[in-house]
Amino acid sequence: MPTIKDSVHDHIAVEGVAAKLLDTPPVQRLRRISQLGTVKLVYPSANHTRFEHSLGVYHLADRALDSLGIEGVEAERVRAAALLHDVGHAPFSHNVEGLIHRETGLYHDDVTGLLVDSAVGEVLREEGLDPERVAGLIAGEDRYGQLVSGELDVDRMDYLVRDAHHTGVPYGTIDHERLVRELTFADGDLVLAEGNVQTAESLLLARALMNPTVYTQHTARISKAMLRRATERLLDATEWTAHDVRRWDDYDLLSALRRTDATSEFARRYDERALFKRAVWAEYGDVPARVRGFGFEKADAAERAIAERAEVRPRDVIVDVEREPRMRESTSEVIVNDEVRRLEDESPLVSALREAQRRRWRLGVYCPDDAIDRVGAAAVEELELDAETAPVSEVKENVHATLDEFGAE
Amino acid sequence: MPTIKDSVHDHIAVEGVAAKLLDTPPVQRLRRISQLGTVKLVYPSANHTRFEHSLGVYHLADRALDSLGIEGVEAERVRAAALLHDVGHAPFSHNVEGLIHRETGLYHDDVTGLLVDSAVGEVLREEGLDPERVAGLIAGEDRYGQLVSGELDVDRMDYLVRDAHHTGVPYGTIDHERLVRELTFADGDLVLAEGNVQTAESLLLARALMNPTVYTQHTARISKAMLRRATERLLDATEWTAHDVRRWDDYDLLSALRRTDATSEFARRYDERALFKRAVWAEYGDVPARVRGFGFEKADAAERAIAERAEVRPRDVIVDVEREPRMRESTSEVIVNDEVRRLEDESPLVSALREAQRRRWRLGVYCPDDAIDRVGAAAVEELELDAETAPVSEVKENVHATLDEFGAE
Amino acid sequence: MPTIKDSVHDHIAVEGVAAKLLDTPPVQRLRRISQLGTVKLVYPSANHTRFEHSLGVYHLADRALDSLGIEGVEAERVRAAALLHDVGHAPFSHNVEGLIHRETGLYHDDVTGLLVDSAVGEVLREEGLDPERVAGLIAGEDRYGQLVSGELDVDRMDYLVRDAHHTGVPYGTIDHERLVRELTFADGDLVLAEGNVQTAESLLLARALMNPTVYTQHTARISKAMLRRATERLLDATEWTAHDVRRWDDYDLLSALRRTDATSEFARRYDERALFKRAVWAEYGDVPARVRGFGFEKADAAERAIAERAEVRPRDVIVDVEREPRMRESTSEVIVNDEVRRLEDESPLVSALREAQRRRWRLGVYCPDDAIDRVGAAAVEELELDAETAPVSEVKENVHATLDEFGAE
Amino acid sequence: MPTIKDSVHDHIAVEGVAAKLLDTPPVQRLRRISQLGTVKLVYPSANHTRFEHSLGVYHLADRALDSLGIEGVEAERVRAAALLHDVGHAPFSHNVEGLIHRETGLYHDDVTGLLVDSAVGEVLREEGLDPERVAGLIAGEDRYGQLVSGELDVDRMDYLVRDAHHTGVPYGTIDHERLVRELTFADGDLVLAEGNVQTAESLLLARALMNPTVYTQHTARISKAMLRRATERLLDATEWTAHDVRRWDDYDLLSALRRTDATSEFARRYDERALFKRAVWAEYGDVPARVRGFGFEKADAAERAIAERAEVRPRDVIVDVEREPRMRESTSEVIVNDEVRRLEDESPLVSALREAQRRRWRLGVYCPDDAIDRVGAAAVEELELDAETAPVSEVKENVHATLDEFGAE
Repeated sequence: MPTIKDSVHDHIAVEGVAAKLLDTPPVQRLRRISQLGTVKLVYPSANHTRFEHSLGVYHLADRALDSLGIEGVEAERVRAAALLHDVGHAPFSHNVEGLIHRETGLYHDDVTGLLVDSAVGEVLREEGLDPERVAGLIAGEDRYGQLVSGELDVDRMDYLVRDAHHTGVPYGTIDHERLVRELTFADGDLVLAEGNVQTAESLLLARALMNPTVYTQHTARISKAMLRRATERLLDATEWTAHDVRRWDDYDLLSALRRTDATSEFARRYDERALFKRAVWAEYGDVPARVRGFGFEKADAAERAIAERAEVRPRDVIVDVEREPRMRESTSEVIVNDEVRRLEDESPLVSALREAQRRRWRLGVYCPDDAIDRVGAAAVEELELDAETAPVSEVKENVHATLDEFGAE
Repeated sequence: MPTIKDSVHDHIAVEGVAAKLLDTPPVQRLRRISQLGTVKLVYPSANHTRFEHSLGVYHLADRALDSLGIEGVEAERVRAAALLHDVGHAPFSHNVEGLIHRETGLYHDDVTGLLVDSAVGEVLREEGLDPERVAGLIAGEDRYGQLVSGELDVDRMDYLVRDAHHTGVPYGTIDHERLVRELTFADGDLVLAEGNVQTAESLLLARALMNPTVYTQHTARISKAMLRRATERLLDATEWTAHDVRRWDDYDLLSALRRTDATSEFARRYDERALFKRAVWAEYGDVPARVRGFGFEKADAAERAIAERAEVRPRDVIVDVEREPRMRESTSEVIVNDEVRRLEDESPLVSALREAQRRRWRLGVYCPDDAIDRVGAAAVEELELDAETAPVSEVKENVHATLDEFGAE
Repeated sequence: MPTIKDSVHDHIAVEGVAAKLLDTPPVQRLRRISQLGTVKLVYPSANHTRFEHSLGVYHLADRALDSLGIEGVEAERVRAAALLHDVGHAPFSHNVEGLIHRETGLYHDDVTGLLVDSAVGEVLREEGLDPERVAGLIAGEDRYGQLVSGELDVDRMDYLVRDAHHTGVPYGTIDHERLVRELTFADGDLVLAEGNVQTAESLLLARALMNPTVYTQHTARISKAMLRRATERLLDATEWTAHDVRRWDDYDLLSALRRTDATSEFARRYDERALFKRAVWAEYGDVPARVRGFGFEKADAAERAIAERAEVRPRDVIVDVEREPRMRESTSEVIVNDEVRRLEDESPLVSALREAQRRRWRLGVYCPDDAIDRVGAAAVEELELDAETAPVSEVKENVHATLDEFGAE
Repeated sequence: MPTIKDSVHDHIAVEGVAAKLLDTPPVQRLRRISQLGTVKLVYPSANHTRFEHSLGVYHLADRALDSLGIEGVEAERVRAAALLHDVGHAPFSHNVEGLIHRETGLYHDDVTGLLVDSAVGEVLREEGLDPERVAGLIAGEDRYGQLVSGELDVDRMDYLVRDAHHTGVPYGTIDHERLVRELTFADGDLVLAEGNVQTAESLLLARALMNPTVYTQHTARISKAMLRRATERLLDATEWTAHDVRRWDDYDLLSALRRTDATSEFARRYDERALFKRAVWAEYGDVPARVRGFGFEKADAAERAIAERAEVRPRDVIVDVEREPRMRESTSEVIVNDEVRRLEDESPLVSALREAQRRRWRLGVYCPDDAIDRVGAAAVEELELDAETAPVSEVKENVHATLDEFGAE
């Protein structure tokens, strides 16, 4: 049986429905969706794609099914869902997901439409699988949906290890083989078997370390915010809709941004890594609750107001409100003394990590290099921040540096 | 001092002229030139770029300079050359290099023009370095040019290890740290110190194993040939010149291919991995010498003749003549008993590897799936191949398979 | 310059005083002291030694000195201390350290005697270094002693990574290169530079995960307790003293245990991995404070009393009281907003990890397989444990299994 | 199902007869037999044991059986043989194997006696397996014996990867997962499937690189020769027989050598790494054929004659004749164009590697540091070597160095 060589899991044997799905355009498109979007501007090796990640998730799902003794059509359905779980991703993965959702109401795991009306749907039906049920698994529905999308899903196991491998950051190294082997079902819930409180904690800790180092590293956040902003302008300035963008790949989006007048400046900044800098980088306690709760419209209005105060172009101010910390793994369930218990009730680390996340929360206000002082001062006033907050001192020191932004906290 | 995190060499400290060069557009552009071009269609994890490779080459050059005790402006010049050595690469790296050379006379290491008239040249001059001398080092000139481009250059050391890391193929694993430490100069030549015949052999063997498994794997060759062909058609059909293409990145090229009528079919095939298949896959001894020596025009003429015989469109036939085997490392020099000797005189492996390469040499004729039989028969006649050669039997078995092409020989 | 090849740090260049120390008997003896003692009975690949660890610590110290800009005799002294820091270890490293300390008053880092009167002392004096000051560094004294023995010492950085490499447990993977580069001195204290709260946390978390998985895994604890017990009997039954044992290597100790009547039964059990099992495995809250505070004499008395109640030989009962949790890293200092702060004041994880450690604390009572029920019941009475505690249910299930003890929590 | 954590293959699930065999004393003894004997004196991390290697071989055998579709009692027999294949190893593995063979007529894979009359035999019979047939598989007999001992056996696949992992030398990195998956049977012979000439070559090349770098590195050869010599003296001086030694572990042997007057000097030299040095290191062409063909008696006589000429004690001269090069993998069979062919007929590398081995062949004469000149001169005369051969120049330069012997060629 032929296999695909993966830099993380070595040889992956792709069989059955998965082998047929592999050749469909929606799956092949994932080759051109970068797994971590603009994180590659911080970690130059992080060029991996949703395609290899999807193969990895398929592989781990297959191992988990094997370990759980699930076979037949139910297993095929899970394998299909694992391979397909990311076909709903827009270009640059999560970077423009919020925008797409605002415009279309769809998140990346709302894939019913994509599965039913495409070559994927054809393959699934040929193999006796109902596309809607596969889409349901991807959304976390059904008993086995938990394997693909849940607190203990194989999606997370793959991305932690893979993102660590490609960024070079060692923190995502979990014992995925143990995790997969220790999964079991208790009253219909996917849980970890006896003796695995610490295994569950390790998953939580890996995410807790990868988050600020990789996923929400400040330069990654700035470039992501800039890309989102540019994509908004693209939709405003052209006939393209969020539904179009959702089906594009990274090449389509970058190419469109380059060729559209309203966004070509961003494209140049992206290409040359001439990114905005932090005018404000404020801690949780220094930001009024109303600002922490900003939705899109309010952030947009605040940006205009700050720009006016600072006398810069509106497009030159970005207000980036981090989401309130959440921690999905905290509700993972583990068997302890023959009883199913929530990890947060078993592990004192859960609430501590939640608190640690809150401490790392930051409000960012970004602008071009030469406007930091003005924009910072304007933002402090407009957003009623604690006066000491901005402009952040590090920023000044970093004016000339690209390097400090590679992988530094 | 800030560092950049690399998945191969861990933290890379970038200082001096290199730190300033890093921010220039020609260097940042390398982030969007894939290191192995279409090899990613065979090894899905092989999405690494010339940018991370260039950082790695800079890092190894820095280590080698340190070990050799070279300092000051000469060292800075070599470090600059190491970081810049690939700025002349066209999109998809080597894939369209032949075409660019035919049209412009320039190879990827002819970078004088690129260095002199660009932000790079400004930085170099500011730092007291002459862009032309840096370009000379990249072309392998001068005493220290051998470190950047020669039989024992750090370029090869980095790419073998990096390509192995990202493809998952273990064969490129050399002891680069040892290689770098054992370099020395003898009569102006960069050689390996006493006791390193085997170290030199290991470099040769690593390439000998990576070549057929990765660099000239048949699906990689097919997709590369298709990309080259499509780019030729793009130049014919549009105003763009090879000089333009040379400065593009992967996004520019793929986007242009998609948007141009004459090449949109290729773009679809590339995006959906609906590649041509082998109609002929003939060994060295089965191919007349005149065919093995085909240049561009003759291959082009042969394609047309085959297409006519087979009654298919000319664009549906590709004749892909592999270069005659060469083996640059064979002239590496090693000190043996206080004498500088050529590796090929010391190691019986060199001539054996040359012979092994010849055995692996193949002439490929590619076409769409459904024309294999016709095109194969036509090619056998037109090229006067040994009748048993084509259409190759494996091809038939593989008609429905994508998988067999992942990493299989 | 010649180098030593290490499986963790690749080539290690050993120079200066370190190169001369390498050949001395006390350093060569470390080749025969296993790094993790009886942990190899749980993780079969964990056969690494104090010698390779000492080389690793030397290497990281050298990198840290370089990054801190420390040179000359002070740097040589630190490098010597790094290479020598473990010469005071008894056979099987920490396994019999408590016993040695009880009898000699010396811990493994009390090495003044070993350094002054040995070939090591000669080398140090020849190189102009005072053995007593080197011993002082090893004990954590002086400004630079913190590098070798302190909250942020390179000892811990090496052993976490090395133990992870050799056991196969991924949790010890820290970013040691970053740690070494971010060290700095503030008011004479070794601290982490600005922006490294999370780097400090990662060190803490790595230890928190390695502890229960590797260092205090239950089978590791049982075999360690058995070895300690056997060594006590060896000292009672022979003329050898703790001072003798302290200078032995693993071969000496195992050989003595085999050849002495009083300990040959243990030696057989060790060789055949016929270990005692858990009769009691009680949580912190279920154990009276007086028992948790047991020193050697009280534990010894309790063992005799339990054996009498259970009608087994005294040698067949081991009471193993885990130390109260401590967490050295919690007092690590990190610069935050230009101020030196303690990690425990900055990170909510510290107190949570302390609480997590308390939850994982266990009192063990061990005995031969066939006496579990009797010894368990006797121990519950004698130690006034909560009645539900013992005999632990898992134990029963595991009677026939060796396998469940490999790496399971 | 419980698993054992391995640093090379991660989790290894041990089931069926293997799980029962694991607990037997002959298998547990392998924990105390070092895989590479005295190679640890060159590569300090190479402390791995026959136990972890045996688990690895079991694991690869299990994967190969799975891929080949072999099940039931035949598969159990192979799995048992894989786990047991090294129980016949003497202490320090191959180091004293020649001596044991001379005295007992047994090689390490002659294990019928060990299997029939031991706890192993009991377990096998309980599980319905005939110990003699299992011993036959270990000796390479039967159709499936080729999996355990043959040109393409899983033994070699494990040791190459494992020795590379533990020494840090990257050359052993083969694609073992591919090798295992591509095995197939053709007319009763275990061969590699179509398209694997290069896979077979890679195995050959990995050994060709590991040999001089690790297995026959000169310091490894010297220490091995010294250990063999000391063990001969031990047998002469005591009641112990080669049959006793064969069942010992490393601890028994080193302890006996230390406690026996006739060998305590060696033990001290081993412990302090005060090894003999090369007085002669002669190439193939410089050594008369009669000397290259020396058996034990002739080497022994030559040593005495050299010692007499050089006026040193007989025990201070060791003549170490390397075996004639052989290359087992050369007869590996691979399917090419549906035909089974020998690798040596397909690959020009085979004969080149044979020639390369011959060039690396060396005759060594070793003695204490201070007798190099006298012994070298005496050996040249006595053995009628080419006069230029000895004493080798490098040796003189290395008199004070330990370091140059770590991993240098």
